[in-house]
Amino acid sequence: MKRDEAIPVMEGAVCPVPLAHDVTVVMGHGSGGRMTHDLVQRRFQRVLGNPALEQGDDAAVLRLPQAAGRLAITTDAHIVAPLFFPGGDIGRLAVCGTVNDLAVMGAHPLWLTASFILEEGLPLATLDRVIESMRVAAEEAGVAIVAGDTKVAERGKADGLFISTAGVGWVPEGREASGRLARPGDAVLVSGPLGDHGIAVLEARGGLGLASDIVSDVAPIHGLVEALFEACRQVHVLRDPTRGGLATTLNEIARQSSVGIELDESAIPVRPAVQSACELLGMDPLYVANEGRLVAIIAAAEAEAALQALRRTRYGEGAVRIGRVLADPAGRVLMRTAIGGTRLVDMLAGEMLPRIC
Amino acid sequence: MKRDEAIPVMEGAVCPVPLAHDVTVVMGHGSGGRMTHDLVQRRFQRVLGNPALEQGDDAAVLRLPQAAGRLAITTDAHIVAPLFFPGGDIGRLAVCGTVNDLAVMGAHPLWLTASFILEEGLPLATLDRVIESMRVAAEEAGVAIVAGDTKVAERGKADGLFISTAGVGWVPEGREASGRLARPGDAVLVSGPLGDHGIAVLEARGGLGLASDIVSDVAPIHGLVEALFEACRQVHVLRDPTRGGLATTLNEIARQSSVGIELDESAIPVRPAVQSACELLGMDPLYVANEGRLVAIIAAAEAEAALQALRRTRYGEGAVRIGRVLADPAGRVLMRTAIGGTRLVDMLAGEMLPRIC
Repeated sequence: MKRDEAIPVMEGAVCPVPLAHDVTVVMGHGSGGRMTHDLVQRRFQRVLGNPALEQGDDAAVLRLPQAAGRLAITTDAHIVAPLFFPGGDIGRLAVCGTVNDLAVMGAHPLWLTASFILEEGLPLATLDRVIESMRVAAEEAGVAIVAGDTKVAERGKADGLFISTAGVGWVPEGREASGRLARPGDAVLVSGPLGDHGIAVLEARGGLGLASDIVSDVAPIHGLVEALFEACRQVHVLRDPTRGGLATTLNEIARQSSVGIELDESAIPVRPAVQSACELLGMDPLYVANEGRLVAIIAAAEAEAALQALRRTRYGEGAVRIGRVLADPAGRVLMRTAIGGTRLVDMLAGEMLPRIC
Repeated sequence: MKRDEAIPVMEGAVCPVPLAHDVTVVMGHGSGGRMTHDLVQRRFQRVLGNPALEQGDDAAVLRLPQAAGRLAITTDAHIVAPLFFPGGDIGRLAVCGTVNDLAVMGAHPLWLTASFILEEGLPLATLDRVIESMRVAAEEAGVAIVAGDTKVAERGKADGLFISTAGVGWVPEGREASGRLARPGDAVLVSGPLGDHGIAVLEARGGLGLASDIVSDVAPIHGLVEALFEACRQVHVLRDPTRGGLATTLNEIARQSSVGIELDESAIPVRPAVQSACELLGMDPLYVANEGRLVAIIAAAEAEAALQALRRTRYGEGAVRIGRVLADPAGRVLMRTAIGGTRLVDMLAGEMLPRIC
């Protein structure tokens, strides 16, 4: 934020008071002309700059580090409200969301693109905070933001700031992780407590009055994935349980692989503060979004080695085994409850927490 | 649109009247749960389906057709208003915009991602029209939409439908086109009349009462690029003059290459209807957006061959030579006017036509 204390003025202009377009987003920032150029150079390139982005051409041209292997390609739109929440913001979310979607395919995340839809009137200081947060997250994840675009919508036609990111990663030969590859007998692991992100965003909206210190888990989890592939030979499924939470993610996997998944209720990690918030709100933490957690389905013989490997990583310290894969009932997720019963865990049906990512 | 005549109902539901979520976008469509799945499967995958998209994993995993070469990567956000205009719509625009950004780097466009931000209340029939239009445009451009995402914002927090696309293309070895490579003596070509897109969108907003038949030029121009590379050995710069128009694009090139560019006013192609609309509105067609035009800067010795090659392509029939590259004044664009004078053609300064792409 420091660089905003001295408000930049247009080249050659004598400007005793800040101009509107140096303080907030105006429609001209989306014109594609000089104001767009100034915005891109002063705000985006100065912070996120790298050789590909600085070429200033219509697409970045890049060489893969190795010829053998495949590409992973993904995209996400981010419309979280509010833009800032305990533990993160829309910028960190946008970078981590896309990095994680690449990582769970076994890819080394390499390059990101970012397209911004700005609402007229957005304070440029807010944009700067988000861009700086993206820089930090991209650095942590080891990715470069190689292409971008900025559009401006009239006041009341957007909501502050939306970011769509896309990502390209490189998948080494031999790595095959997919929701289709869960096999009966496999162990189901999760890398840490569930629901932190969703509850942190909800609290940031105010009005809940929970006054807890829940912090979003938003983080890049490519390091967890690399640790798993180093420690194990039979990594079958990797996923990050975002919107819809763990329950929805496991239902997707159960369907893709035509297997059953049985969870052990007592093993599922949920922080007491998240549990309390969920009880108050009538929600189930199994359906609350996470943004820095890894679900891994791995041959049972390797489960212990996988847990040890995960626990040695940043963001993986809380890794635990939460269930197993069964042949039946195909396409279903079951929960063995603490009192010894079994219940069906369905996919999230409708809306629970809008604008959580 | 035909497939919407029979309104689908939820599995197993008995539903004598259409449910709200089968007619319009509701918040639950962005939940990440069952309603999101239904939306993706029934609306997106059914129309855009391809093996990568249908895997249903967090990223598409793809193999490059050839190992040698580089990747081109780009992104664009699309917020055009209205969503439909003569000659196109936001879906065609989103596909062509990204295909063209890849093509002008000399890349074969291969794969696109698309992330959608939907406003609560958007008619699903509107979404279907846009998806179908994307299918047609992607087919024409020879690209597959391999990954996507959908988010839903509350009514009044977005404007119908925004689409961010990213693209990945493959650049054959030896192809080097960049805004930095214009050289004194080069010829400046443009593939057809200027300003059609911007004026078509403006007219679609109504109220202008021009009652002309101007149609957007929105189209994929990868075929023009391929024709140029077949016909010429010294293709230096390729660009599509979108937001900010030809004037802004040429100013960018003049700066990137540190050259001057001189245009011949009498050679610049503008349809009479576009010229009339611009005069009425006090606009200069040089600054109006195009979405299916190619600017090519090529060694003068190859200019005639390049024009002949372009004129044989679809969308390149109207190709003409409009100017030349000079050593001085570096970074500037000049116009030799019809009456024999010379004037400076600057970059677009502020806002002209908001939400044109």
